[in-house]
Amino acid sequence: MLGVGLIGTGFMGKCHALAWNSVRAVFGDVPAVQLVHLGETNTELAVRRANEFGFQKASGDWRAVIDDPQVDVVSIATPNQFHPEMAIAALKAGKHVWCEKPMAPTFSDAEAMLAAAKQSGKVAALGYNYIQGPAIRHIRKLLAEKIIGDINHLRIEMDEDFMADPNALFNWKHEATSGYGALDDFAVHPLSLLFTLFGRVSRVMCDMSKPYATRKTANGTDRAVETYDSASVLMRMENGVAGTLQANRSAWGRKGRIALQIFGSKGSILFDQERANEFQLYVTADRATEQGYRTILTAPHHEPYGQFIPAPGHGLGFNDLKIIECRELIKRINGQPAHLIEFADGLEIERTVHAMARSYQEQRWVDVR
Amino acid sequence: MLGVGLIGTGFMGKCHALAWNSVRAVFGDVPAVQLVHLGETNTELAVRRANEFGFQKASGDWRAVIDDPQVDVVSIATPNQFHPEMAIAALKAGKHVWCEKPMAPTFSDAEAMLAAAKQSGKVAALGYNYIQGPAIRHIRKLLAEKIIGDINHLRIEMDEDFMADPNALFNWKHEATSGYGALDDFAVHPLSLLFTLFGRVSRVMCDMSKPYATRKTANGTDRAVETYDSASVLMRMENGVAGTLQANRSAWGRKGRIALQIFGSKGSILFDQERANEFQLYVTADRATEQGYRTILTAPHHEPYGQFIPAPGHGLGFNDLKIIECRELIKRINGQPAHLIEFADGLEIERTVHAMARSYQEQRWVDVR
Amino acid sequence: MLGVGLIGTGFMGKCHALAWNSVRAVFGDVPAVQLVHLGETNTELAVRRANEFGFQKASGDWRAVIDDPQVDVVSIATPNQFHPEMAIAALKAGKHVWCEKPMAPTFSDAEAMLAAAKQSGKVAALGYNYIQGPAIRHIRKLLAEKIIGDINHLRIEMDEDFMADPNALFNWKHEATSGYGALDDFAVHPLSLLFTLFGRVSRVMCDMSKPYATRKTANGTDRAVETYDSASVLMRMENGVAGTLQANRSAWGRKGRIALQIFGSKGSILFDQERANEFQLYVTADRATEQGYRTILTAPHHEPYGQFIPAPGHGLGFNDLKIIECRELIKRINGQPAHLIEFADGLEIERTVHAMARSYQEQRWVDVR
Amino acid sequence: MLGVGLIGTGFMGKCHALAWNSVRAVFGDVPAVQLVHLGETNTELAVRRANEFGFQKASGDWRAVIDDPQVDVVSIATPNQFHPEMAIAALKAGKHVWCEKPMAPTFSDAEAMLAAAKQSGKVAALGYNYIQGPAIRHIRKLLAEKIIGDINHLRIEMDEDFMADPNALFNWKHEATSGYGALDDFAVHPLSLLFTLFGRVSRVMCDMSKPYATRKTANGTDRAVETYDSASVLMRMENGVAGTLQANRSAWGRKGRIALQIFGSKGSILFDQERANEFQLYVTADRATEQGYRTILTAPHHEPYGQFIPAPGHGLGFNDLKIIECRELIKRINGQPAHLIEFADGLEIERTVHAMARSYQEQRWVDVR
Ligand SMILES: NC(=O)C1=CN([C@@H]2O[C@H](COP(=O)(O)OP(=O)(O)OC[C@H]3O[C@@H](n4cnc5c(N)ncnc54)[C@H](O)[C@@H]3O)[C@@H](O)[C@H]2O)C=CC1
Ligand SMILES: NC(=O)C1=CN([C@@H]2O[C@H](COP(=O)(O)OP(=O)(O)OC[C@H]3O[C@@H](n4cnc5c(N)ncnc54)[C@H](O)[C@@H]3O)[C@@H](O)[C@H]2O)C=CC1
Ligand SMILES: NC(=O)C1=CN([C@@H]2O[C@H](COP(=O)(O)OP(=O)(O)OC[C@H]3O[C@@H](n4cnc5c(N)ncnc54)[C@H](O)[C@@H]3O)[C@@H](O)[C@H]2O)C=CC1
Ligand SMILES: NC(=O)C1=CN([C@@H]2O[C@H](COP(=O)(O)OP(=O)(O)OC[C@H]3O[C@@H](n4cnc5c(N)ncnc54)[C@H](O)[C@@H]3O)[C@@H](O)[C@H]2O)C=CC1
Repeated sequence: MLGVGLIGTGFMGKCHALAWNSVRAVFGDVPAVQLVHLGETNTELAVRRANEFGFQKASGDWRAVIDDPQVDVVSIATPNQFHPEMAIAALKAGKHVWCEKPMAPTFSDAEAMLAAAKQSGKVAALGYNYIQGPAIRHIRKLLAEKIIGDINHLRIEMDEDFMADPNALFNWKHEATSGYGALDDFAVHPLSLLFTLFGRVSRVMCDMSKPYATRKTANGTDRAVETYDSASVLMRMENGVAGTLQANRSAWGRKGRIALQIFGSKGSILFDQERANEFQLYVTADRATEQGYRTILTAPHHEPYGQFIPAPGHGLGFNDLKIIECRELIKRINGQPAHLIEFADGLEIERTVHAMARSYQEQRWVDVR
Repeated sequence: MLGVGLIGTGFMGKCHALAWNSVRAVFGDVPAVQLVHLGETNTELAVRRANEFGFQKASGDWRAVIDDPQVDVVSIATPNQFHPEMAIAALKAGKHVWCEKPMAPTFSDAEAMLAAAKQSGKVAALGYNYIQGPAIRHIRKLLAEKIIGDINHLRIEMDEDFMADPNALFNWKHEATSGYGALDDFAVHPLSLLFTLFGRVSRVMCDMSKPYATRKTANGTDRAVETYDSASVLMRMENGVAGTLQANRSAWGRKGRIALQIFGSKGSILFDQERANEFQLYVTADRATEQGYRTILTAPHHEPYGQFIPAPGHGLGFNDLKIIECRELIKRINGQPAHLIEFADGLEIERTVHAMARSYQEQRWVDVR
Repeated sequence: MLGVGLIGTGFMGKCHALAWNSVRAVFGDVPAVQLVHLGETNTELAVRRANEFGFQKASGDWRAVIDDPQVDVVSIATPNQFHPEMAIAALKAGKHVWCEKPMAPTFSDAEAMLAAAKQSGKVAALGYNYIQGPAIRHIRKLLAEKIIGDINHLRIEMDEDFMADPNALFNWKHEATSGYGALDDFAVHPLSLLFTLFGRVSRVMCDMSKPYATRKTANGTDRAVETYDSASVLMRMENGVAGTLQANRSAWGRKGRIALQIFGSKGSILFDQERANEFQLYVTADRATEQGYRTILTAPHHEPYGQFIPAPGHGLGFNDLKIIECRELIKRINGQPAHLIEFADGLEIERTVHAMARSYQEQRWVDVR
Repeated sequence: MLGVGLIGTGFMGKCHALAWNSVRAVFGDVPAVQLVHLGETNTELAVRRANEFGFQKASGDWRAVIDDPQVDVVSIATPNQFHPEMAIAALKAGKHVWCEKPMAPTFSDAEAMLAAAKQSGKVAALGYNYIQGPAIRHIRKLLAEKIIGDINHLRIEMDEDFMADPNALFNWKHEATSGYGALDDFAVHPLSLLFTLFGRVSRVMCDMSKPYATRKTANGTDRAVETYDSASVLMRMENGVAGTLQANRSAWGRKGRIALQIFGSKGSILFDQERANEFQLYVTADRATEQGYRTILTAPHHEPYGQFIPAPGHGLGFNDLKIIECRELIKRINGQPAHLIEFADGLEIERTVHAMARSYQEQRWVDVR
């Protein structure tokens, strides 16, 4: 029996709640889960959501969740600035932590979180769900068995259009205090994929740009935009492979694109999160006249698709990624090997992002470490 | 509070369990759901699954589920031949019924089921989940507002390849006692889509074929295959529109294809369940030089996608369809209008399938009614 | 040296002219071609086009072309109703004939054409260019080597939208005298593909429909449309394979679609003329976890692509099909084996179309022969 | 009447020959073309090709072509190192020049070519055919009318796999004397597109890499590869727009990919040369619930598609691009405005490529001018 606390019930909070609700029914091989305590900004909201999500208790103060002795693990699904305080408090209270990505707005806070995790001896994992999809997991397996030989070039792009409207008013996301822009909003996700598929990044050279220099404020005046919606990065992996990473949160038409191109000595692999239930494989082992990208639909033989659906080509959804992540977390809590980004790797992802930003500021290649 | 019983825990049984588990967390607007009683073929299995799925009680006899006074609604997710007996018993016991499609192997059994439903005054719904997807629901809305004008032609295809291997041994699906073949396995799903999008079918002309005339039995002898893996149907809708319906369960390469082509006087719409998170729209309202099929990714504004995910293009999965269906069922139980195929419509779907089969046997056009 | 005559300089006439102009430069292995004589409806137009296309002589009377002793082969690219008279006259004059498809509006005229061809001993070929594409030719080769095993099901669709506008005025294509509609406009092309890939059709069951029952005439009155823009056909091939053929010339959004689905015991093949420079292959010989449709781009190893371009994936165009056809014609004239639809096969294509029409009229399955 | 000389009859030489052969038949509005003189490395080959391509004279010495008084314009389709000498000689001889891209291996040679062109007063154009496709031309029109608003971000990739095989032996393309690698082989083409669509590049930051550090020579020893098959470039356009350009000639699976992503304030446009007969447009002018990328098939209303084919969606081929380019050249020779990359722009393209190489060598941002 695992007692669960949840803080935050927005996009990701609900996603965590759904995952906790379903993980045992989907996987069978995990212990029973008890939804113990839900925290929100006020009691009324907390009670309403606890009711909907099936939590037993509800508090308007997140500390009550962390202090609850029945809670073994805490889902932290609040805005980034709250992660350090909440995660460190939870770890100190002896709870396992499942914190949404990224770790923290500042690198030193992220470092403090890792330190707290180490000290606690508890599991401290991050919500990098895109590494959990059956297609990505299978690609990882294929790379390991060198189906496309030795990798020699990588490209990854993450694009959405939620900031693309030039007529949207100036908001906090346009202030420098919110971070760099596309880099911290998006680059961390592609990095989580790169880390699990290929290892860490060693050097980066980054350019950033703003689609709209100014935006209207609510009172009709123009205000200079301080963050960069677009970032493009040349990079070298620690294993020597060259590649590029691009992120754009003002890319009209893109909704949830994370497009990966992997080139090797014997073939190549393509993937796009907007069509996450398929990936493309090109192998030179095929006869020359019939070589072409295979569009492979995910199926029960692509783990852990089969735990959700016994028939191929029927498709998982975005929320299912969280269920898979949840099961990995539980395995990890139980001392089993797990496919998960924990605070140590999470810190390296953030180190890489900060190196990218520094590279842009200094207009030069920067070593990540 | 709604007390739930579940019979059968295979592909669909698990899918129902997941739906019951999540429906309130996803939608918020439904009453609390209590997983009361689970039935399986034996107690051991029933207990194990009840444990995993979160049911309070478990029985090796499905009648115990139906007789449980705490159970308000029964999910029937057993093989087709059990549907009539179980559904009728449940209705007689005063339970609402959520029965997997199709209703029954024989038409008379299906009629009896409808009769029982009418007599009981309870809700009796069928598991036609493909009508629930946000893309299909939005297409329905677009057709209603005549975005592509008056419909004049339809094509629908449903293809998978689970029977495509000629070396697979003869099994019960190859016996005539199991039904017609592709017609009852598959045709009902496209018909559920046609019914909700366009109305009923009036006339059909059907051809059927067998990819493999014989199959090996376990003891190595050849045995004649009695069912038809492929069916192709010319048809007229009650509203006069002409179209075709094709189904093939031996179509190598197809995994979960339900491909719809709808042509109207002002445009056309395409959909394929293998890429269920998008659909294609062509409208002549666009300037001629830029007319083309728009690939529209599902998003929060395509109901009820937003209840699952607040961001566009992230994608629902197959199991999410059941959650949507479950909420419609609950709405219906609560006396609200619902988007659901109930026994009355289900019977018409089956009437249509039987008319198709008769058309093939008699090699002529057959009026459905 | 081959002397060429051309009658008609519209869509296809120009296409023939381009083919004659380029065939030797592309293939090298054909004799020199002399553009001798061009015929059009009047001298002025004939002279202008002869000038543009590079013909030496021009006449306002097509008989002059046929009677020209320097002319060895005549391209007939006029509307269908002129084919019989022109082709028969040309054959009688001892010329080879390259006549656009279909042979003739009536079956008896087509029969007369074949008789004239036989009597003349000259080559009499038809303009079924879609069988010439490198993708289709390669598919033919793959089928012959049974890469997808034994074929068991076929689907072919040909759709365009040039008749889709309900506000377009009534014209001659809406009169019954112009033929059946989609059947003769379109069905012949898919049939040419079926014939070369699989052989002839033995039985057909056809439905036809009209998207718009009436159309406005120039003077504003409504007039009943007499032809059928859409035709759907159940069929059996002579080799026993079952399939369907559909044609629709009012299918908004479709521009040059000829979509082929071929299912066999070991895989399947897809092709769509709108993306003619690629085709899709699924084979069960691939490892199960990586089975998927390969999108194969045409390349020099797909004959005769390499005669046009030495680099893969660069793409041929529609007009290049005619150049290939032209070279096949020349090979045939030179007594070599050629991949070409000649009058004998052309007549069978038309026999099949007429059988389809009869099937619709009589609402029953019809044997083609 | 325009007298044509052609030097070189390989990939591009044949392509030029086909273009000269067809340009008048396709466009009608150009003067008669006379294929006068063909030059090759030896007389035998020259005669053979002249015969095939329809040239009147043939020489084993290219100077004879240039000196031929009947020749007005010379197509230069020889390897890059010959371009300067041949082009300058032709211009000095008072001929117009149509030289394949790029201008020359060294920048100073390219400068000399431009100087010669200026001095001659003759037309000196380059073979940047990808700017000629109807899709690209229409995109240019759409950008000009600001259908996607103000451009704010660009990405362009050009990838093929002809150098991807690690087992292919060391050849001259691996020697530094052949150039930089992907940069000069490929980057010029994307630059030609960027120049015509958006203007010139102002600053670049380039990374290059080698998929295979060594290759086997014919005698079995390993030799270090000196060129870079992959190049990735951060860049700023003169108009301030940020973007990236990537080129990879060892990208398994890519055959003729030139993929363009253009993001603007009101939408975006995608194009890929591997499917050159279509492009994708996303516009925010569409109703929100139906926004999506439109796949627009080229058609007669996309100039000059209609000169080739009067029906939409039938598709042009790679060789047709050269016919369009040829007609632009002729228009230019006739003093009309033309859509063509001439030596002045060609030099800027090469200046940009050299700046990219310098940026890599010096590991810093470099101003192009
Ligand atoms: N893994 C993924 O794919 C995604 C991760 N995220 C991450 O999830 C986190 C949350 O983002 P969203 O869910 O999109 O935000 P949201 O704004 O939808 O939800 C935030 C929730 O936190 C609650 N909250 C705020 N302050 C609180 C406090 N002091 N105590 C208790 N509750 C508090 C809010 O009331 C709200 O329910 C962020 O770190 C974000 O980066 C977000 C979207 C996708
Ligand atoms: N809506 C959809 O998309 C789909 C619907 N179905 C329908 O769902 C139904 C079940 O099919 P699957 O789940 O694929 O079958 P399955 O074989 O995976 O599961 C059947 C379950 O019923 C149980 N069962 C059998 N007899 C029983 C009895 N007498 N008492 C209690 N439990 C019993 C079995 O032990 C098993 O757990 C069928 O009617 C099928 O047509 C199946 C797949 C997809
Ligand atoms: N193979 C293919 O893919 C296609 C074949 N076709 C076939 O090509 C034939 C011609 O069709 P289109 O070129 O589209 O028609 P079109 O209307 O574009 O051209 C017909 C030409 O024939 C000329 N013509 C008419 N009567 C004549 C006469 N008595 N003497 C001399 N010239 C005469 C017209 O002036 C015109 O130039 C038809 O049989 C059609 O079915 C058409 C389009 C595509
Ligand atoms: N625009 C485009 O898309 C493309 C442009 N090119 C360009 O075209 C040019 C030629 O390349 P390819 O045709 O691929 O090469 P290729 O090797 O196929 O043909 C070169 C031809 O030049 C001839 N040649 C060589 N030296 C000669 C001399 N001294 N005198 C007369 N003839 C001579 C050769 O015999 C051969 O026929 C290059 O500059 C290349 O960059 C090449 C491919 C595509």
